[in-house]
Amino acid sequence: MDRVNIGNHFDLKASVFQAPRRGIYSFSFHVVKVYNRQTIQVNLMQNDYPVISAFAGDQDVTREAASNGVLLMVEREDRVYLKLERGTLMGGWKYSTFSGFLVFPL
Amino acid sequence: MDRVNIGNHFDLKASVFQAPRRGIYSFSFHVVKVYNRQTIQVNLMQNDYPVISAFAGDQDVTREAASNGVLLMVEREDRVYLKLERGTLMGGWKYSTFSGFLVFPL
Amino acid sequence: MDRVNIGNHFDLKASVFQAPRRGIYSFSFHVVKVYNRQTIQVNLMQNDYPVISAFAGDQDVTREAASNGVLLMVEREDRVYLKLERGTLMGGWKYSTFSGFLVFPL
Repeated sequence: MDRVNIGNHFDLKASVFQAPRRGIYSFSFHVVKVYNRQTIQVNLMQNDYPVISAFAGDQDVTREAASNGVLLMVEREDRVYLKLERGTLMGGWKYSTFSGFLVFPL
Repeated sequence: MDRVNIGNHFDLKASVFQAPRRGIYSFSFHVVKVYNRQTIQVNLMQNDYPVISAFAGDQDVTREAASNGVLLMVEREDRVYLKLERGTLMGGWKYSTFSGFLVFPL
Repeated sequence: MDRVNIGNHFDLKASVFQAPRRGIYSFSFHVVKVYNRQTIQVNLMQNDYPVISAFAGDQDVTREAASNGVLLMVEREDRVYLKLERGTLMGGWKYSTFSGFLVFPL
């Protein structure tokens, strides 16, 4: 899902971002459901706790994104990742993105 | 609505960001309407002037976000905030976010 | 579509961002279709190659945004721009935004 991975802090297989240092990070995501009438709920998780959620539940659309973004105070080695809380992505998640970067260190 | 407030430049009660210094700031918002068939229009305001707008007006969805984002040149002590220009959030605005950070000082 | 253009690296007429230097850039866009039942697909292009896409295809909404965002490794003088891959914006693209900024130089 990601295109840039400076410092190798994304674990590509699990799509988990592990913070290399303490600071404020900006995270945003757009998870696209395809040909799928289920409502999906996507949570942005920090160390197993949900921080923000996004929804996509339109019935008459072939592709729709569940999008949100947040500034997060992250401690060193915190893990930040997306979790599909509700629904499935059985139609695929092509075009989905998940981005995070350090805004400033603390 | 915010999770991070370094420097205490957000006024939490009014959800107004007051710029501590001159520069380019990145702002983004996702305002989620819940069980509400009204169309909402959300404006990002800078000192009482609308800068950008976002809309959510789907009829058959339980949760939908009005989202947008912008880079803004902000003078010291400018106030940046969200205004619900049209519609109501009577179903609540849970899951809504509003984020801003300094990209670089001027 | 843009509000801020520090360094004059946006070509306003063509809405092309030309990178002044090598680095990681954050790009995001919200392209709003208005009174238009066509599905639109918007691609973020880097030097004529599509990087990410976004869709808006709802039938019963007057305004809907095709939104996405990405972190991109950009070489000096790369061009980054939006392309309407599918559909038209015959109802206008008012309220659309396209933002990009340097996250860190390389």
